[in-house]
Amino acid sequence: MALGFGPRSVVLTGANRGIGLELVRQLLGAAEPPQWIFACSREPDGERGKELRKLASSHPNVIIVKLDATNPVTIKEAATCIEGHLKGAGLNVLINNAGIFTDKELETLDPEDMLNAYKTNVVGPLLVSQAFLPLLKKAAKESAQDGLSCRKAAIINISSVLGSIESVPLNYSKPAVPYRCSKAALNMLTKCLSLSLKEDRVLCTAVHPGWVKTDMGTQEADLSVDESVRGIIGVLSKLGDTHNGVLVNWKGNNVPW
Amino acid sequence: MALGFGPRSVVLTGANRGIGLELVRQLLGAAEPPQWIFACSREPDGERGKELRKLASSHPNVIIVKLDATNPVTIKEAATCIEGHLKGAGLNVLINNAGIFTDKELETLDPEDMLNAYKTNVVGPLLVSQAFLPLLKKAAKESAQDGLSCRKAAIINISSVLGSIESVPLNYSKPAVPYRCSKAALNMLTKCLSLSLKEDRVLCTAVHPGWVKTDMGTQEADLSVDESVRGIIGVLSKLGDTHNGVLVNWKGNNVPW
Repeated sequence: MALGFGPRSVVLTGANRGIGLELVRQLLGAAEPPQWIFACSREPDGERGKELRKLASSHPNVIIVKLDATNPVTIKEAATCIEGHLKGAGLNVLINNAGIFTDKELETLDPEDMLNAYKTNVVGPLLVSQAFLPLLKKAAKESAQDGLSCRKAAIINISSVLGSIESVPLNYSKPAVPYRCSKAALNMLTKCLSLSLKEDRVLCTAVHPGWVKTDMGTQEADLSVDESVRGIIGVLSKLGDTHNGVLVNWKGNNVPW
Repeated sequence: MALGFGPRSVVLTGANRGIGLELVRQLLGAAEPPQWIFACSREPDGERGKELRKLASSHPNVIIVKLDATNPVTIKEAATCIEGHLKGAGLNVLINNAGIFTDKELETLDPEDMLNAYKTNVVGPLLVSQAFLPLLKKAAKESAQDGLSCRKAAIINISSVLGSIESVPLNYSKPAVPYRCSKAALNMLTKCLSLSLKEDRVLCTAVHPGWVKTDMGTQEADLSVDESVRGIIGVLSKLGDTHNGVLVNWKGNNVPW
């Protein structure tokens, strides 16, 4: 059975592979697919963008947009381009999915490992959110629906249980200090956004996709990308006021900070 | 009554003002003052270092060391200098106190605000901890005491309740997104260090000093620097195994993540 979804427009970063690419695929197959899927990638051309280009060539509602979350110029250009496509309508959902993973031992970590993870995993989502805020607020204003939801206006940050300080002892075989610190900060950013944007009626939620068999998660992971993304779409379609400023996993269960 | 303390040697960053300077003062007045207080500052000379220099001139156990937590070269030089002073002994306590505060509205924040806070408040404590790890491990090995404690070997990260994601709604009149994100990440770093260093018997704890009347906290704050530091020293002297990898406030109460 195809999943219901609902939002008219979705911007998604890191859309050319892994969870991002599968999100595009499954949104296309949803019962109410979005009218626009803006699939953003820092490398839409070349070998790495091949799969995404293939999808876009057969689906006119998929629009590939160049966006590098660490480069403010490309973010602004992407926002301008997408605003043009929306022709005066607002944006319903921004999914900050682009991210990098760094696993290094504590004693060999250097400042660049820490800063690169922070730039991509925290500063990137902040800048992308700032750039799309006017369009998200517009969608929230235009919506006749009560309460917060993805059908109205939402920022979804793809985070991780590895950013849960409470959960650290459970899986410390992977120290991944730069990644963990960046995801803990992304969780804080999600909470801050949720409070700052509450009056504008823009929902903000962090989602842990599970440990997924992708280039980042490796084939050791316990979840297929299909299963994780099926879960995420189901969760997104049900998010409401009680999910504002929280971290939920792909099954919809709350994850502690 | 003078507070008991116990550790033979303490390295403290950000020692030339605010909480750092008061820590030096009160450690000197403790019932068992440290044999060495290495008071580190990025600006030990000039007007800003005046108070600290005055203290050091009348207390031979206060040694002023130049250290900028955002500059790896000065960190290494400081570690070499301090190792020389210790003449083969280990280091009992490292207090990562240097930090910066940035409060800006969400919509006007720029990448530099985020990165500067992260460099000073997270990457700095990581680099300083890495540099002093050999000396901390040495102290832990030499100690005959059971269990973790500041008398043996400890890294204390001065964090903040503003980095507690759980506590955000309570004081959101100050969004301070760069600061909050950096302190949430520092809390994660503390947890990671506590697990990585457990086998080496080095305690790692984050401390919230309260909202303190300093240059950073402003005169609106509710706590005098004397009261906060008196609390912190009392807490440090009592830290043990149950405090490894947690965030406690100046009264010794746990703060949620």
